[in-house]
Amino acid sequence: MEFRQYKAISKTLILAWVSLIYSPQIMEGQVDDQAAFFVKDIHNYALSESEAYDHLSTLCTTAGPRLSGSQASYDGLAYCESVLTSIGVDTLYRVECDVPRWYRGVLDLSLQVNGKKLPVRATALGNSIGTRGNLVTGNLVEVNHLDSLPFRDIEGKIVLFNRPMDPTQIRTFNAYGGAVDQRVFGASRSAKYGAVAALVRSVGSDIDTVPHTGVSSYEDDTPTKIPSIAISTFDANQISQALHQGKEVTAALRSTSDLLPDTASYSIVAELRGTEYPDEIILVGGHIDSWDLGQGAHDDGTGCMQSIQVIETLKALNYQPKRTIRCVLFINEENGLAGGKSYAEYSNNANEYHLAAIESDAGGFSPRGFTCTGHEDVFIPMLKNLKKFESILEPYDLFIKKGGAGADINPLKSQKGILIGLSPDSQRYFDLHHTAQDVIENVHPREFLLGGAAMTSLVYLIDQYGL
Amino acid sequence: MEFRQYKAISKTLILAWVSLIYSPQIMEGQVDDQAAFFVKDIHNYALSESEAYDHLSTLCTTAGPRLSGSQASYDGLAYCESVLTSIGVDTLYRVECDVPRWYRGVLDLSLQVNGKKLPVRATALGNSIGTRGNLVTGNLVEVNHLDSLPFRDIEGKIVLFNRPMDPTQIRTFNAYGGAVDQRVFGASRSAKYGAVAALVRSVGSDIDTVPHTGVSSYEDDTPTKIPSIAISTFDANQISQALHQGKEVTAALRSTSDLLPDTASYSIVAELRGTEYPDEIILVGGHIDSWDLGQGAHDDGTGCMQSIQVIETLKALNYQPKRTIRCVLFINEENGLAGGKSYAEYSNNANEYHLAAIESDAGGFSPRGFTCTGHEDVFIPMLKNLKKFESILEPYDLFIKKGGAGADINPLKSQKGILIGLSPDSQRYFDLHHTAQDVIENVHPREFLLGGAAMTSLVYLIDQYGL
Repeated sequence: MEFRQYKAISKTLILAWVSLIYSPQIMEGQVDDQAAFFVKDIHNYALSESEAYDHLSTLCTTAGPRLSGSQASYDGLAYCESVLTSIGVDTLYRVECDVPRWYRGVLDLSLQVNGKKLPVRATALGNSIGTRGNLVTGNLVEVNHLDSLPFRDIEGKIVLFNRPMDPTQIRTFNAYGGAVDQRVFGASRSAKYGAVAALVRSVGSDIDTVPHTGVSSYEDDTPTKIPSIAISTFDANQISQALHQGKEVTAALRSTSDLLPDTASYSIVAELRGTEYPDEIILVGGHIDSWDLGQGAHDDGTGCMQSIQVIETLKALNYQPKRTIRCVLFINEENGLAGGKSYAEYSNNANEYHLAAIESDAGGFSPRGFTCTGHEDVFIPMLKNLKKFESILEPYDLFIKKGGAGADINPLKSQKGILIGLSPDSQRYFDLHHTAQDVIENVHPREFLLGGAAMTSLVYLIDQYGL
Repeated sequence: MEFRQYKAISKTLILAWVSLIYSPQIMEGQVDDQAAFFVKDIHNYALSESEAYDHLSTLCTTAGPRLSGSQASYDGLAYCESVLTSIGVDTLYRVECDVPRWYRGVLDLSLQVNGKKLPVRATALGNSIGTRGNLVTGNLVEVNHLDSLPFRDIEGKIVLFNRPMDPTQIRTFNAYGGAVDQRVFGASRSAKYGAVAALVRSVGSDIDTVPHTGVSSYEDDTPTKIPSIAISTFDANQISQALHQGKEVTAALRSTSDLLPDTASYSIVAELRGTEYPDEIILVGGHIDSWDLGQGAHDDGTGCMQSIQVIETLKALNYQPKRTIRCVLFINEENGLAGGKSYAEYSNNANEYHLAAIESDAGGFSPRGFTCTGHEDVFIPMLKNLKKFESILEPYDLFIKKGGAGADINPLKSQKGILIGLSPDSQRYFDLHHTAQDVIENVHPREFLLGGAAMTSLVYLIDQYGL
């Protein structure tokens, strides 16, 4: 695209647009100029002054990947506390919990097709046990649905779960949700039918040689825990092709992975106390823990640093909230959800009320809007009220829709507020999700900062107008 | 983000959603199931079967960058004709025109700060002349607005235009529009006040060492044409800092750039003839020419191949259009607009009517929607009718708004149809626009294909329901 004139979005234009074209009635009166101006100020601050991207960069490169219970997770928590302290919050405290501690160890997997070595890029899945000093060997059998296991002869064999993400899903999270059962339950269910290990096609959008880790789980009725290993989508295709050609594929693996005893950790809570309705809490959050292969940049360093950006921005703009704005950085979303559960328990015990909770845990890409859920008693009217803000958010191209919110905030549902998830563009996310490529270089500063600005704007609007 | 259930977008859900929540009245009756289903089919095809990304990849890697009049531009045109022929269109022809032919040549620019060499990453701007065998030297003077030139002493000096893109603009095209006057007119206007050359801060969003080329222009009253050179944003900042510290910055440059005589070229027109209203044309297009530093991938290989994707998809789905669907690949958008102008002239002479023209020339990133403009006699009612399609496009998160359309289709305004621009996410575009980084590796397949699917969907809806 070449030279042509574009009109700048000026405050005047936004105002004219908001008041002339939409004129929405917001809860406690008409949208006033102040709201449109302040939302623009929030975005201006994000794109010209916020230090949130620098914070994210420091988290990624100094703490690094932050598996629950690892030293890096404590380093990450400490860094976030130091940032929040330097920004200046009214209260900063910890909600403690025990977290599982998974040890990746060393994986050695080799494959042969008709006796000839086939290279394979693999990584142990989270919470998987290892081979306890043994060499585990077996012929590979491809299975594409957990429900098919009873009908296949897998006794003494190694199962390859190979159902890809559905490429026709527009929102890649839907495709992820449609494939991830293999990763979570593949090993556990296979063990019931005598398999000795499970290999799982990486739950990723693209065809490449990068394996994706992620949680796996042994159900209580699992007779024998067997190792659970992810292989790259490219390698899964290669193996599948060989099996379909009637070739014999065998694998031999050793792994020193293990699940260690739980250990103490904590989530961080920082708040700006409300001046008029301090008992109505508006939460913003992300999870501080991450998988261990990359830097936990998109998942979920961005969510943490966007949540801190909300506090940074409101403080920088000298905003006095009517309601209590709380930034929560949850521990252990990836392999246990101990942080989300313990926070809800703490909050319920204190008889708190979260009017709204907003989680960012879908990557740091360009924000497309917000998806919302909540308790059936209150959800429809609350969503209706929330959607009235769409007109003010329109210059930023942000929708408000029904949809998932976030794993860490879901346990707050019983408090009957609204649960909201930041919804960034999802097309690139599952290329790098849970891989060694989830690093700061793959987070675009403007896209990330606009996500934090979107969250800040919604917090401001809910705080100003209620729900 | 970890394991949780997401509901897939099924056809049933789309249908339920479209009919229960929105129930819009579309022009010729209610939205029928068929429309929602067909738009989903278009997207399914794009994400699982379309060959458009392969076509783009071939264009980028075999023809390469396609400066107007270059051999590569003819290779690119020929490749597009071969793809359209293999897809099978009713008519394929050329609209001929003369195009300017710019020769980049070799640039040698060196800078000194207080006599000490400062490295600088530079590239000649398009249509700039060179130094005609001379060494051009001078002290640098920083100027940030064309309007300031009369008040500065630039006689015998080299002007550095250094106003950055405004980072607070949400849509980066607005920031581009606010800075690009320096690149287009900087040299021409400086020459009037005696400057010997112009250096221009690259019109790019990020701070890096990658120079951005782009068109520059000598106005008719330019007394002496002087060279026009872009330098990287990082280097512009370094020079500016030195000047603000009172240091002397001098430059010496040689360049063999030149503007050669016009040469013959052409735009491509391919059409599917309408069965009911063949005289109502719905155009989709992009420009086949590009700058010469990268591969012209985003600018505008994507627009060309998305336009071809529209035809590919409608053919593959056995769609019989009511109106005439025309794919136009324009030549010379970057440095003359000869293709867009000659096409409009041809079309007006043939008394044609373009009901709608859709251009994709804003990058191959995730589609956010469409922006529209048109002749004042018809625009408001046409936009109103077009916006009724938003409900069917809602599962794909696509807006329809007032805004710019595209340089190549703007000359069609007098035909009083609607002019529409595909509006992709703009955050990353001006990092690589007109640089060596505009290559196929930086085009994400799903983002690109979704853009083509969005265009196809809108073409289908306009064809079905009129405007």
